[in-house]
Amino acid sequence: MSQLKAVEYSAASPEVKAVYDDIRQTRQVDDVNNFWKYIAQHPPTLARTWDSLKDVMAPGALDPLVKELLYVAVSVTNNCGYCVASHTAAARRAGMTDEMFGELLAVVGMANETNRLAVGYRVPIDPAFE
Amino acid sequence: MSQLKAVEYSAASPEVKAVYDDIRQTRQVDDVNNFWKYIAQHPPTLARTWDSLKDVMAPGALDPLVKELLYVAVSVTNNCGYCVASHTAAARRAGMTDEMFGELLAVVGMANETNRLAVGYRVPIDPAFE
Amino acid sequence: MSQLKAVEYSAASPEVKAVYDDIRQTRQVDDVNNFWKYIAQHPPTLARTWDSLKDVMAPGALDPLVKELLYVAVSVTNNCGYCVASHTAAARRAGMTDEMFGELLAVVGMANETNRLAVGYRVPIDPAFE
Amino acid sequence: MSQLKAVEYSAASPEVKAVYDDIRQTRQVDDVNNFWKYIAQHPPTLARTWDSLKDVMAPGALDPLVKELLYVAVSVTNNCGYCVASHTAAARRAGMTDEMFGELLAVVGMANETNRLAVGYRVPIDPAFE
Amino acid sequence: MSQLKAVEYSAASPEVKAVYDDIRQTRQVDDVNNFWKYIAQHPPTLARTWDSLKDVMAPGALDPLVKELLYVAVSVTNNCGYCVASHTAAARRAGMTDEMFGELLAVVGMANETNRLAVGYRVPIDPAFE
Amino acid sequence: MSQLKAVEYSAASPEVKAVYDDIRQTRQVDDVNNFWKYIAQHPPTLARTWDSLKDVMAPGALDPLVKELLYVAVSVTNNCGYCVASHTAAARRAGMTDEMFGELLAVVGMANETNRLAVGYRVPIDPAFE
Repeated sequence: MSQLKAVEYSAASPEVKAVYDDIRQTRQVDDVNNFWKYIAQHPPTLARTWDSLKDVMAPGALDPLVKELLYVAVSVTNNCGYCVASHTAAARRAGMTDEMFGELLAVVGMANETNRLAVGYRVPIDPAFE
Repeated sequence: MSQLKAVEYSAASPEVKAVYDDIRQTRQVDDVNNFWKYIAQHPPTLARTWDSLKDVMAPGALDPLVKELLYVAVSVTNNCGYCVASHTAAARRAGMTDEMFGELLAVVGMANETNRLAVGYRVPIDPAFE
Repeated sequence: MSQLKAVEYSAASPEVKAVYDDIRQTRQVDDVNNFWKYIAQHPPTLARTWDSLKDVMAPGALDPLVKELLYVAVSVTNNCGYCVASHTAAARRAGMTDEMFGELLAVVGMANETNRLAVGYRVPIDPAFE
Repeated sequence: MSQLKAVEYSAASPEVKAVYDDIRQTRQVDDVNNFWKYIAQHPPTLARTWDSLKDVMAPGALDPLVKELLYVAVSVTNNCGYCVASHTAAARRAGMTDEMFGELLAVVGMANETNRLAVGYRVPIDPAFE
Repeated sequence: MSQLKAVEYSAASPEVKAVYDDIRQTRQVDDVNNFWKYIAQHPPTLARTWDSLKDVMAPGALDPLVKELLYVAVSVTNNCGYCVASHTAAARRAGMTDEMFGELLAVVGMANETNRLAVGYRVPIDPAFE
Repeated sequence: MSQLKAVEYSAASPEVKAVYDDIRQTRQVDDVNNFWKYIAQHPPTLARTWDSLKDVMAPGALDPLVKELLYVAVSVTNNCGYCVASHTAAARRAGMTDEMFGELLAVVGMANETNRLAVGYRVPIDPAFE
């Protein structure tokens, strides 16, 4: 769609610039990713999504690396190419090694396999899990 | 399907019993879950799946709790009821607290949301991620 | 939803009855499944879906059993409980044995696993496949 | 696959040409999209799919713009790149503005997030919804 | 999981009660749905999700009925039982008739079918859609 | 990710070379596909996946062509571009004709459509299917 395009910093409204600035400061990067530049076409979505993501990905009971691994696992399962690329990069910045990545995909693959075996065999939930 | 049924230990073939015994010993449980009893209807699938799962879920570069969290993330994204119930229980046994579970689902929810925003806005992959 | 309910033969309009009669005759059954009774709430959907399904599932280059196996594979991958139950039953009527069912689910499981490995490792398509 | 290719009008069989002509007349376009040219490799699928789509997308209780918005919502959720591109274009032709598109994706994103929260927390259906 | 349970109003913390009160007032209902009671186990998720949902579902360029139809379309495509039940009810309250519901599901069904035809035939994006 | 790359035969470890040799001999090909070269970055995943796939895809109660058709059906439903391309090619080598491919996609499309109708209408499982 020719209508879809990145909103670059120089062309952004003050409202959008403020979000970009917060992303750049929080993540210590010079420029924001395409994801933010594209959703900036709808400023309320940009502001709301960044607020939520900053909260959800902050350190808590789970550390940031684990959260990034979970993000990759969901993105792979959903087959979202952009998301796999960007969150694999984010996970590496957060400390993911090649070996961790290999094990992550092995778990994601097995989970997708056994999910289907559970569905196909119509396995009833064990009383202990209720 | 009346043809689908759990293969209980007492009625299992020696081949199936050997797998059940290995599961019970590895996991230190008295009985195996319904998942194993149902896929035991096709003994090669039982043996192959257990062998793979034992390898994949063993401690490695990622610890067992992180692997269980990843399993829950995939199962939730695939909407597999049995898998969510059984792997949430497994994650709790591996040390997942209520707070960790809350953060896990928050990440899974956000990842599913932003995956769709990336697809809907047709965001091109940043050169830095290639 | 109290608004959702099966449209039984006795209460059906002539238009719906005609579709039910064709299903009963084509499949040689006394009554139609719940699937048809529920979508009959929107008669154009009932008529169009049955027409399409009768065409698509008829013997052709692929025989009816293979078509039913494919239907189960999709239904398991989509985690549709009703669909897995009804099409597993249909596949058995078309000749699927326990051994065939076991192999079917093994293939479906492996395909779901390797699909995710291909996505996670971002495997480029081999020139020979283009 | 070298075997896969668009069936252009000039090379089409009379049966395929008739469908192309109906698409061109119904939609008031000079040429049909790649979607139709590719599925034309299996003429019965071309004819059946066009017949169904023409019926389903015609004005009814829901107007054509709403139907196109729904099509985009499903295509985004399924992560179908071609479908997102073609139906976003179709929705714009039917009157979708930038603001409507922004709100559409915001709803689709939130629905995908809350769907997973409902699954992960294993929320039982309220009696009022049964 | 015995750990999962609804947080009823009487047992809720002041923070959770405030969200419940806002939902009740905004929606003019006596009690909140199970969805809110279950995610209330993680108060930050409750507060953030309600804030986002209230914004996203408010009247805007798209009216509330259209937004509820989109929510149902996504929930059906994701096969989320709770979500289909609750949002079908919400859509009916917003004015969805039986005829509109029938057409909605017809579009959702066709979109899921044609999405797969586009993927299976590997249809390239038309230049006009780029 | 610059970290992701194919492991070519000449640069492979003896462990990886042994798997490549087995694939080449089993499939009677000169070189392995990109899928294997990419997952070879995690040798245990390469070895385990090949062992499983060789077992699962071997002739049994279902013949290899049927198994390849099932693989395509799952890959299309999951929208995995690489998987659709590689398994469509594999199915053609196993004997799939254009007509069979056309019918395969027609079934996959219809199954995805009716799966959603069953979910949207919340069809209860017929007692006969339990």
